[in-house]
Amino acid sequence: MFKQNYSSKLLEEAVDQFATLPGIGRKSALRMALYLLKQPEENIQKFASSFLELRKNAKHCSICNMISDTEVCGVCSDKRRDHSVICVVESIRDVLSIENTETYNGLYHVLDGIISPMDGIGPSDLPIQQLEERLNKGDVNEVILALSTSMEGETTSFYLYKKLKNYNINITSIARGVAFGNDLEYTDEVTLAKSIENRQPFKANN
Amino acid sequence: MFKQNYSSKLLEEAVDQFATLPGIGRKSALRMALYLLKQPEENIQKFASSFLELRKNAKHCSICNMISDTEVCGVCSDKRRDHSVICVVESIRDVLSIENTETYNGLYHVLDGIISPMDGIGPSDLPIQQLEERLNKGDVNEVILALSTSMEGETTSFYLYKKLKNYNINITSIARGVAFGNDLEYTDEVTLAKSIENRQPFKANN
Repeated sequence: MFKQNYSSKLLEEAVDQFATLPGIGRKSALRMALYLLKQPEENIQKFASSFLELRKNAKHCSICNMISDTEVCGVCSDKRRDHSVICVVESIRDVLSIENTETYNGLYHVLDGIISPMDGIGPSDLPIQQLEERLNKGDVNEVILALSTSMEGETTSFYLYKKLKNYNINITSIARGVAFGNDLEYTDEVTLAKSIENRQPFKANN
Repeated sequence: MFKQNYSSKLLEEAVDQFATLPGIGRKSALRMALYLLKQPEENIQKFASSFLELRKNAKHCSICNMISDTEVCGVCSDKRRDHSVICVVESIRDVLSIENTETYNGLYHVLDGIISPMDGIGPSDLPIQQLEERLNKGDVNEVILALSTSMEGETTSFYLYKKLKNYNINITSIARGVAFGNDLEYTDEVTLAKSIENRQPFKANN
């Protein structure tokens, strides 16, 4: 991006490092590095230790695989939540997104990945056996599949469906359709077609 | 963004810290924190030390105020550059942008700020005296003002102009106008009006 001769190697190294972060190009990386350069040293020490501590000390919940500071995460150990429903998601971010809606009161199971032959990730690389162990305890009566509709997501959902259909539980999938507030004319054809195919009884309070 | 009870304080702290970076919202911050969580510990140590080192060891060039690993920066110490021209810019990023064009061969003077009464920044907070000292040495015959056209930028340019006009040098300003490749119809009115007012002799090789 700029001639190294004419600037600082230290700056260049910091820009290189910031540019490895997801979604950060070299221009944003430069902006961040120069921003930190102007901060008090204690602030940037705090910034550095925040993610070093996270990396060192964060655990995965032994039940649902969610990131947690404790052996069992807050959701799994919360007695007020509905322990008969498990929502299967691909990532930690999906859990946070669903929690953010403040409407779901069941538990989760975080695969932390998805079946992807291209990336060499097979079913055995995902905590699917852990999920079955949870079902074997007999308290669960519904598993919600909330994986993406990419090819990998569909493959994983189908694999899970085949594994789980032998259990005496409902297997459901989150609703797909035209997003609330979206115009039909700007909705992609697949979503629109599916939303008609999967139409539901009209509810006046919706 | 998400209920703290139900996730990791460590994660939350890292997200908080990333979200202090310029241009980074909480969603991007989360993405970065989770990305680092999956990296080998040595990589994130390297990431942390890159900006800690930058903060600790980077200097400002004693002549032009540009960030530098050495007492005098690469530009100021380069004998092949034209030491009779100084381009005054607001920030380090502006120097990198101009260097990136690979067409300018003079020196710089980095104000590292701009006169802004709203933010309590007056002329005495900027290295304007340093600039005058450079001019007093008598080697310089042109100062290019390359500050922004914001009110603060114009104020600073005008202040500099008043200070520098007593020296026997040319004071110039970078050309403003319709950007190359831009359509007239999408150019803002001020720029378009100024570009007509400041029209130049047609050059066939442009």
